[in-house]
Formats: sequence, structure tokens, C-alpha cells
Amino acid sequence: MGKEIGITVSKENDFSEWFTQVVIKAELADYAPVKGLIVLRPDGYSIWESLKMSLDKKLAKTGHRNGFLPTLIPESLLSKEKKHFAGFNPEVFWVTHSGDSEIGDRLALRPTSETLAYSLFSKWIKSWRDLPLKINFWNTALRAEIKSTKPFLRTSEFLWQEGHTVHSTKQEAEQEVADILEIYKKTVEEELAIPVITGKKTELEKFVGAVYTFTMESLMPDGKALQMGTSHFLGQNFSKPFDVKFSDSDNVENFAWQTSWGVSWRLIGGMIMLHGDDNGLVLPPRVAPIQVVIIPIYYSDKDKENVIQKATEIHDILEKNNVRVKLDDRDQVTPGFKFNDWELKGIPLRIEIGPKDIEKKKVVLARRHNREKHDQVISGIEKMVLSELVSIHNDMFADAKKILDGKTVTVCTYVDFKSELEKGRMIHAPICSNQQCEEKIKEETGADVRVVPENSDDKTLKCIYCEKQSESIPLFARGY
Amino acid sequence: MGKEIGITVSKENDFSEWFTQVVIKAELADYAPVKGLIVLRPDGYSIWESLKMSLDKKLAKTGHRNGFLPTLIPESLLSKEKKHFAGFNPEVFWVTHSGDSEIGDRLALRPTSETLAYSLFSKWIKSWRDLPLKINFWNTALRAEIKSTKPFLRTSEFLWQEGHTVHSTKQEAEQEVADILEIYKKTVEEELAIPVITGKKTELEKFVGAVYTFTMESLMPDGKALQMGTSHFLGQNFSKPFDVKFSDSDNVENFAWQTSWGVSWRLIGGMIMLHGDDNGLVLPPRVAPIQVVIIPIYYSDKDKENVIQKATEIHDILEKNNVRVKLDDRDQVTPGFKFNDWELKGIPLRIEIGPKDIEKKKVVLARRHNREKHDQVISGIEKMVLSELVSIHNDMFADAKKILDGKTVTVCTYVDFKSELEKGRMIHAPICSNQQCEEKIKEETGADVRVVPENSDDKTLKCIYCEKQSESIPLFARGY
Repeated sequence: MGKEIGITVSKENDFSEWFTQVVIKAELADYAPVKGLIVLRPDGYSIWESLKMSLDKKLAKTGHRNGFLPTLIPESLLSKEKKHFAGFNPEVFWVTHSGDSEIGDRLALRPTSETLAYSLFSKWIKSWRDLPLKINFWNTALRAEIKSTKPFLRTSEFLWQEGHTVHSTKQEAEQEVADILEIYKKTVEEELAIPVITGKKTELEKFVGAVYTFTMESLMPDGKALQMGTSHFLGQNFSKPFDVKFSDSDNVENFAWQTSWGVSWRLIGGMIMLHGDDNGLVLPPRVAPIQVVIIPIYYSDKDKENVIQKATEIHDILEKNNVRVKLDDRDQVTPGFKFNDWELKGIPLRIEIGPKDIEKKKVVLARRHNREKHDQVISGIEKMVLSELVSIHNDMFADAKKILDGKTVTVCTYVDFKSELEKGRMIHAPICSNQQCEEKIKEETGADVRVVPENSDDKTLKCIYCEKQSESIPLFARGY
Repeated sequence: MGKEIGITVSKENDFSEWFTQVVIKAELADYAPVKGLIVLRPDGYSIWESLKMSLDKKLAKTGHRNGFLPTLIPESLLSKEKKHFAGFNPEVFWVTHSGDSEIGDRLALRPTSETLAYSLFSKWIKSWRDLPLKINFWNTALRAEIKSTKPFLRTSEFLWQEGHTVHSTKQEAEQEVADILEIYKKTVEEELAIPVITGKKTELEKFVGAVYTFTMESLMPDGKALQMGTSHFLGQNFSKPFDVKFSDSDNVENFAWQTSWGVSWRLIGGMIMLHGDDNGLVLPPRVAPIQVVIIPIYYSDKDKENVIQKATEIHDILEKNNVRVKLDDRDQVTPGFKFNDWELKGIPLRIEIGPKDIEKKKVVLARRHNREKHDQVISGIEKMVLSELVSIHNDMFADAKKILDGKTVTVCTYVDFKSELEKGRMIHAPICSNQQCEEKIKEETGADVRVVPENSDDKTLKCIYCEKQSESIPLFARGY
């Protein structure tokens, strides 16, 4: 494979360039003409569709329904919850004209839809019988990125889902926030083979407008943490300014309790970074647009006919068993070129079949993720391929988990903290209750608290920054 | 049902107000805070999801794949195909600022994506091996509406799909345009029970930038035609300015042949207008979020227990048979209230069950669309309900077809033309080849050529306007 087609840098030496090349050369995405915006090509979008289907099913089962919200929000409405607005203001795209006419109340391109959704919820909800209201929106959010952008990780428009729920009790809303975090974790682990750490954000790092924020985080190979999804308990912070009220069974009016939560195509960015290698993309089987590629190998026309025929048989039986399979019967390129091509695209399993294989009634199976090869008898191949796909997923997850665990350390001093950080680690470090210590650490090292896992309270140690009594041992890292 | 809940005007006397009330009161949609924009509530969005799934399957089967394009297109790119740009220019929303910074090259909110997609296709396509390229995008289009807006029919942002394909031959592209029209027709007839008339648009009415446009049209009860979907043969009109070229098998460079096509949530608007009645929405079974509602009827606690138990059994067996079924066990409202409530929401089939029914081992089935009721034995009810849903669809389609056919007439004179138009008819009328006649008719009557059906060439009659020799007998109507 020529240099211009394959990946030209190694993942270890130039992670950032490697990532961009994988995205573009595996044809997942491309740059749009506006800086900071990308386009998803079919292979990239197909991964998003798989994720969407998996998450959508879980949300439907738990009583959520989908809706549609428009892209444009009037400035007057967006600015109704002050703190929330201040958080987004520098990133807002503003529509000021339609055709040649100027628009009075400028229109924001939705950076997120809390304000729009809740102005509607206040009309829709009258009594306790209308609750809980659990709506989800599959759309995009638009936030003009000032920092340097990166496909899937930091773009000025991104695909996501935003869920918004309204409850009659605080307890029910808090349960929802926790349930959603579990659903997210399950989806990411089971579809993308990405291990995550869940817990709360600190006051400093939570969503502006939330009472608290749950998060799931993972560590990328460059030592930076990636926030993979958040679930916010909003309390009554929005129901009060937006007048989201309900009358209870005694006919008494109350402000409702709310949640909001989202995951975006960042998940795909995480998947690429975590699993990819120097040959390109490595796709977890459940989201791979093509799970198995069959490469016929022959050097004469007589062999060709036999090989293609057998390869087609195998293709058909796999397809009948709901395997997403492709037979690469291109004539104008060599088997070697095809190997490289499908490796670049990350197809989880390759089947090689040649005349000698047919004589022995077998094929060669080659795994993408660890490049292991073994012979496989053709009879019963469908069962073997299905179980192979499951074990590829499990092995990819186990490998990733081992690396994550190996890169997660605990320190007791600021000196150790800084040295571990340079090694690209996620660090458990005790801190006190004074928010200034957290701020100072972030300012001096670039690392922030990614997540405060459950049961991380600890008053027996010393704060790594001020050395006063610790309050908890959260997890620090530099972040995306 | 109180006036404030039910529909307060009749479909016949105040069609426009009737339509809006159905949309809002059946909770399909609501107004967003920006004029001309709407929000879809779960029942409305669910209809869109059903349509999407049905169409998506057909597109996948015929080799189309989905992708994602961003919302923002630079003005410089949008204006590259002059005629196309001129067509959309007055409707474009312009982003001029991000945060506090002004943007140099203004950004348009996508009114349609030809320009953006084709600037990318020109990068992606190199040789005949990359063709055909068949991509579809499920997104929204944004066009600032100057005329008065109406939910689903005329809004400044609407859900749609836009398909874009690239071919190496003219013939293949033309076949694609025709195939898509067939797929659209099938989808609309099989999912929404709407009969349509297909054919070409005239030069005057075609999509700006297309060589020709196929359309499907239906007639609404107020005598106005609704364009339900279009499929455009673009020829090389875009491939030339956007440099969409491929080298053929002899290594000679050629400009490619292109198509684009779309349907929008207008289809839902058509469904509401065509099937609804004075009691509210009437949903075709295949897209109904709930297909069957079970209403338990009882007046004592003892009866209640029995009735609810039997109703639950029926619910469970229907659910097991993949019927979307709801048991309305609300205690605080009467059966009569429930009847009206679910009629307003258009649920195709109602099952009534009371103590006397249970004694006789039967229930009452009531169809929404023609309000027919009949008894049904409980044993084997799942089969009967499934076949009932099919025949409801067929009857709804047949009824609509009869009305459409009855309202389609042929005239030979301009006097008859104008008189039939006032009766709300679709009119076959002969016209000559001079485009000015078509323009004059439109100017004087408000009716335009909706569609030129296949085989409507006719040189034996006289043009209704200039009385010279006719060229064809297209179909006229006033339109939405």
C-alpha cells in the first residue's frame, strides 16, 4: 500500500497526526468547508447509527420517547437562566439576518436545548398525571470552538442526544440521573469495548445550571482523559425561572424536579483513539459497518472460479446468519493490497480463502485487533464466526481495561502527582474541601478532577496541595 | 369532552383552523418561540420515525447509505451555482457572528445541501470504481418562510431526507430518479394510505438547477394540491461548476451525472388533512404510535377487578403479537371521556370491554376511521386485530382514492377550467408548448401545473389559453 493511502506516522510518536489520518483515510469523516466542522461519510455515520440504535432501545424500554426541537433559540429565551447562558455565550453562533432582513431578537443556533425545551414543558405540564415527562432528542449541538478543533473530539457542530426529564419528586429525578449513567456505561462498554470510570464532577467542573453532574470518563493512550457522557441533576434550577410547575394530587402547585443528559459522537473519537493502531482503525465488532471481509486468493483463472464460488457460499451463509459480511472480489488489486485496505478500515475479522484451503476444506481467520491468525474448517463456519466476533469484543475490552487499570495510580504528594502526570496517568489524589486547592492544581498542572468516584470520601489523608486534612480522593487527569 | 379539549370547528367550514387544532390538540406538535418554527411532541415524532424506518429500509436495499452534513454552508460555496443560489437566496438564514466575533464569509443555514455535498464528492470521486455514489442524509432544511406558516406544511425549519447520487452514465442517473419516485410512492401509499399522482414538473415549476424534476402530488380536501416529494435529474448542471469528475476505464476524465431527491414531514401534514375528521386525527395503522387502545368499562369495584384483569390479558396477548397497544386504565375519567380522547388522537382501533362482554366472552371493536363497531369473540383476538389493522389501512386508502378520483376532471375550455377550479378540483387541461400560456393561467387563476403524468402528450386538442394546438394535458390545481 502506497504511503499516500496508509497511515504514515506511528500512534506512539505522533498521536495527534495519527488520529487525524485514521479518521480521514479510513473514510469515517472529512473536513467541511467551514473550519471546525466535519462531515460523516457512510462508514462513520454507520457507527453512530449502531450506537444510536443500541441506546435508543434502552431508553424506550425505560419509558423515554423521542421528539424534535428546532435549531434556533431566541436570545431572550436563552438568556433567561443567567449562569447557564454565561457558560455558553462565547460559543454561540448568532443568526442576525434572514434573506436581506435583519432579525430583531437575534437567534442562537442551539448550543443545548434546556431553555427551549423547558419553556415548552411549562405549557405541557399541568398536573402530577403529566409526570414523569421523559423526552429525548437526537440532534446536533452547535458551539463555535475557539480552541483547535479535532474530528469527533472538538467540533463546532456535533451529533448527540440530549435527554430531558421532569419529575414530581427530587428522589425520582435523582434516580433517573443515576439510571441514565448506568445505561450510558453499559452502552459504551458493550458496543465500543471502552472501559469507563463513573462518578460525580466537582462543583468546579459540573454543568453550569446543574445541582450536580454525573460523568463517565476514560483514559486515552496519550494520557489525556476523555469525558464520554454526562447526566445532570438540575434540581429546581430551571423549573423556577421557566415556571415548570405541576399541581399534585391535593391540587397544590409545586415546582418540578428536572434532569438532562447527553452523549455525543465523541464516543466514536474515544473508540478510534483507544483501539486503533499503526495500521489504522480497529473496530469493535458490534458497531463495525462490515464485521467480516472475505478475501479470495488465486493466481489462475481456473483457481479463480473455484475460489470465488466457495467464497460466495461462505458469504451467503454468513449473511443469512446476520453477519455484516463483504466479499472483496475486486480484480484490479492484489490480495496484499486488500489486506492493507481492510486493516486500515478496521474490519474486525478477515477470512482468507485460496485453492489449497479449499482442498483442505478450511479457511484462514485473521483477527484485526491482535492480528492473530488460525485455520478454520469451512463446515459450521457461521457458528465459529459469530462466537469469534463475541470473543474479539471481549478481548478488546479486556485489553483496554488492563491498560486503563495499569495507568491509574494513587499518590500522596504533589511531587508524585506531577511526576505521574507527565507519564500520562490518571491519578487518585487526596484533596481538601477548599475549592482553591483544586483550582490551583488545575492552573499549575493542567490536570483537573475528571471524576469523584463513589465511596471516595476520605478524611484520613492530607491534601496534596495545602497538606490540610483531606476530604476525598478524586481522580485527576489532563483532559480533552 | 370540554370545548377546550376537543376540536371546536368543523373540517368543512374552517379547514385551516381545523387543521391547526388537530395538530396541537392531538399533541403532534407545538409552536416554538420563533415564528414559523415548530416542535414535534413524541406522538408526532413517532410518525416521522415510522416513515423514516420504512423509507430507510428501502433505500438501504437499493444500495444507498446514510451520512451526516453540517448545518452551516459558507456563502461563497452556496453561491457557486448561480441559478440554484438565486432560488434560495431570499429564504436563507445568515450567521454573521460567533460569540462576539464577526464572521468574514457569512454562513448560511443549509436550505438544501447540493453545494456542500458536491464540493465533497469532487474530492471523494476519482475513478469509475467509486461510482455509483449513493448517499442519503436525514436532517433538517432551514428556509425562512415569508408567507404565512403552518405546522408540517410550511415552516422555516423542517425534517426531511435529502438523497444525492453520482453516476457514470446519464442513463443510470435517470433510472435512479425514476426508481426513487417509485420508492416514494410505495412508501406514501403503504404507510400513510395516501394515493398520489406521479409525473414530471414543467420547465416553469421544476427545481432550479435540475434538468427535470419528478414529483408526486395529492389533492387535499380543501381543493389544493400538495407536493409530497420530488426527485431531480441534475444532469451535469452541478458536476461542472463543482468539478465532480471521474476517470473511466480508459482513463479518460468525464463529468459525472447526478440526482437529488427528498421527502419531508409535509407527508405528515398530508396525512392529517386527508384522513382527519371533526373528531380529530385519524391515523393510518402502520404509522400510529398506538394502534389499539383498550377501554375497560365498569361501574363497581367488583366489576372493575374482572374487567381490568381480562383487559390486561388482551393487552398482553396483543403486545406479544407486536401490536402497539395501550390499556387505558385511568381511574379519574369516564369511559366516554376516554373514547373522545383517543378519537382526538386518531388511534385506529378501540377495544371496549365490560362485564357483560366478559360473560359473553367477547369485546367490541370500534374503528376510528369510519366509526364502525362490531362484536368480536375474545378467543383468537390477536389474529382478528392484526387483520383488522390491515383492512383499516386498505379501506382508508380506497376511500381516499375514490375521493381523489372523483375530484379529478378533464376540461377543454378556460371557462370550464376556472369553474372546476372553484369547486376545488384537480384539472387535466390541454396546453400548448408556449410557456407563456402556463404562466398566464397561473397568474390569472392561481393554479399551476402540478404534474405532467406519463403519456400525457396530446397534439389533437386546443390549448385552453391561446387555443392553438395542444402539446400535452397536464394536471393543474392550486397548490400548498
